[in-house]
Amino acid sequence: MTYKEIAKKYLENNGITIGDTIKINKEDISYEGILLDRSEDSEDGYLVLKLDSGYNVGVAIENTQAELIQKGDKPKIGYGAEDIAHDPSKQNISIISTGGTVSSIIDYRTGAVHPKFTAADLIKANPELLDYANYNVKALYNILSENMQPKYWVEAAESIANDISDGSDGIVIAHGTDTLHYTAAALSFMLKTPVPIVITGAQRSSDRPSSDANMNLIDSVVAAKSDIAEVSVCMHGSLNDSYTYLHKGTKVRKMHTSRRDTFRSINYEPIAKIENHSVDINPNYRYTKRNENELEVNSAVEEKVGLIKSFPGICEELIEYHIDKGYKGLVIEGTGLGHVPDKLITPLARAHDENIPVVMTSQCLYGRVNMNVYSTGREILNAGVISGRDMTPETAYVKLSWVLGQTNDIGEVAKLMNKNIAGEFNEKSSIKYFLN
Amino acid sequence: MTYKEIAKKYLENNGITIGDTIKINKEDISYEGILLDRSEDSEDGYLVLKLDSGYNVGVAIENTQAELIQKGDKPKIGYGAEDIAHDPSKQNISIISTGGTVSSIIDYRTGAVHPKFTAADLIKANPELLDYANYNVKALYNILSENMQPKYWVEAAESIANDISDGSDGIVIAHGTDTLHYTAAALSFMLKTPVPIVITGAQRSSDRPSSDANMNLIDSVVAAKSDIAEVSVCMHGSLNDSYTYLHKGTKVRKMHTSRRDTFRSINYEPIAKIENHSVDINPNYRYTKRNENELEVNSAVEEKVGLIKSFPGICEELIEYHIDKGYKGLVIEGTGLGHVPDKLITPLARAHDENIPVVMTSQCLYGRVNMNVYSTGREILNAGVISGRDMTPETAYVKLSWVLGQTNDIGEVAKLMNKNIAGEFNEKSSIKYFLN
Repeated sequence: MTYKEIAKKYLENNGITIGDTIKINKEDISYEGILLDRSEDSEDGYLVLKLDSGYNVGVAIENTQAELIQKGDKPKIGYGAEDIAHDPSKQNISIISTGGTVSSIIDYRTGAVHPKFTAADLIKANPELLDYANYNVKALYNILSENMQPKYWVEAAESIANDISDGSDGIVIAHGTDTLHYTAAALSFMLKTPVPIVITGAQRSSDRPSSDANMNLIDSVVAAKSDIAEVSVCMHGSLNDSYTYLHKGTKVRKMHTSRRDTFRSINYEPIAKIENHSVDINPNYRYTKRNENELEVNSAVEEKVGLIKSFPGICEELIEYHIDKGYKGLVIEGTGLGHVPDKLITPLARAHDENIPVVMTSQCLYGRVNMNVYSTGREILNAGVISGRDMTPETAYVKLSWVLGQTNDIGEVAKLMNKNIAGEFNEKSSIKYFLN
Repeated sequence: MTYKEIAKKYLENNGITIGDTIKINKEDISYEGILLDRSEDSEDGYLVLKLDSGYNVGVAIENTQAELIQKGDKPKIGYGAEDIAHDPSKQNISIISTGGTVSSIIDYRTGAVHPKFTAADLIKANPELLDYANYNVKALYNILSENMQPKYWVEAAESIANDISDGSDGIVIAHGTDTLHYTAAALSFMLKTPVPIVITGAQRSSDRPSSDANMNLIDSVVAAKSDIAEVSVCMHGSLNDSYTYLHKGTKVRKMHTSRRDTFRSINYEPIAKIENHSVDINPNYRYTKRNENELEVNSAVEEKVGLIKSFPGICEELIEYHIDKGYKGLVIEGTGLGHVPDKLITPLARAHDENIPVVMTSQCLYGRVNMNVYSTGREILNAGVISGRDMTPETAYVKLSWVLGQTNDIGEVAKLMNKNIAGEFNEKSSIKYFLN
């Protein structure tokens, strides 16, 4: 038990230990649940209870009375993986935490959310995980995902590769949701994998009653044990806790600021649905099976790649700026089928002439770039711009960063951009994948 | 009749005039429909037929035989509004064409699409329009909408205001779809209107069998005759021709590169559905009625406003560049609830210190900016950044451009950005408006 001072004394006075079912009464309110261990950084004076709903809640113990309902019969609950004996009948799953809401706790005084959980804390807060696998847990870094940078993708890819080499049967990465889809795309290009690599996050931190962290983590472990040896994203599929979806790492995007089902496959279908801890693979999807690929890591990435959105007031100087500043590649978020104002075509041609590849995507997000329909598009093609097809702007940006890590030759870049490396584009687009 | 040379001779030889129902046989194929007049710029050697389906089709007359099925009993069909006697029982609608696919024809030789229609041509190609109103038609400019610039919004607003002053009962603007939503937002801020202002477009040009131009135009006229005296967007509501939606001009976005139902209300519901030429107003929507507002034009706009998307590799120098280049305002497309990497906060604070307002939006598109949840967001707020609430990045960009046309005082800018001018934000957000 790592509870300290006030909380420790309170628990001792009431004869309560971690894993016990207790009831805490406070004025008109009472909470009943299983007492969990605290996380390393949490404050004194609070207990963490797992409610029947599966949600964890932090309760300030001041002015409360505790009641022991039942002694815990699962002493493992509340302890980190390091305390648990290895079970040879279970698979070995690595959990790598990078920070973000899924790895955050609320500061119960201020209400602000901090990324303070370690991977071990994730297991403490979600002890049901121990029923599913043996764990190797690692805190890679502890940042909110808006601060992710391309160099962190490289670290993550190499850390994952090490775990796979060391015999991990599947990888779960806990990540902030803001840029989770950028990281998912990066790992998709960087790694060929013999085991599942599942990235997950949460829209509400583990200690909030409405947290989606618990279910997303458990379903991610279920996916990491499955036969789908690909990079995927596991997140809520609906507003309630009934199922999660597994999305292809290169075809997914955060589409809502706050809903739990914010992640959506774009120009694609989810590759699987996970319900009642069982993976239902989309019958239309031909997946890469466990051990079909050998482990291969190509983590080199070019950081100096720009992502520029077109809009009515855009100035041609913005393109010139990127060229002059030594950017090695540009992704344009054009309008409609992949257009920009005519005045931008000359600087885009200059970029191409100076061996800076330019990739066109659409700010519509759904659909497919087609620069053959209108005169503007044809001129953009003539300027040497490469079609991003039906990739999201985010995936095209990550892909170009990765491609420029592999080669500086503009012809080779075009060849790789036009090659389907990680299922990032469909050969033909179906208009049926819209807003689903 | 404006058919010339080859086509004129062909029609004369067969005793056919505009408005007749004819059948054209060509090897195994035959087309039956009403002969329409040609548009000013169309090539010789082609006839334009309106099929039973309502679609127009261009038929090359080489190696064909024509059959007269029925002499036209509606001699008006195929002529421009200028040929039609004013009907005092009908409302007076202005159609202003700006170019785009809705005003385009295919070059039947090359297959490329050109914006060559005038507003009068729109009526020639869609003669059913004459059943609905008297028309005042005007070609304001003839460009594909990726070339729209803020100064064109000003021209459009002033042209519309003139028509309203001259007694127009409603305005229809034919516009390219790529940036239609930017223009719709601009007109929403620039005009207080006593009559409906309806912006429409098409994803397929009028002379393609699958064109959506015809129905979008007719329903736009129906909307322009209605009681909703607001700026709205009228476009297909589904993949087939069964109904259109009317979207609020500040809450709509192009979401698919090619689907006909590409325009979607974001964080909002369509304000009306138009089916069988009847306007069904959303009962949840409190609209501004005809003549409730007096005409008011505030078309001043600041062109030097930047729109910057955040992404993992973004450099703080990009913000510095915009400040140094004399930008008067910046809209950031942040991640999640409205975040950027920590390293961008110092340059954003510099912008604010130099009286350059910065507005935060979310690249999720759906949901609402909330910078109070995480530490990063609070620091961004402390840097003086203004929340874009649940506006799309595009609407926030247009609004800031317009607000900076009204005032240079950064305090006044913040006040106006926080004021609901044209229904551009909801006071509270509902998560139910997602991907619908």
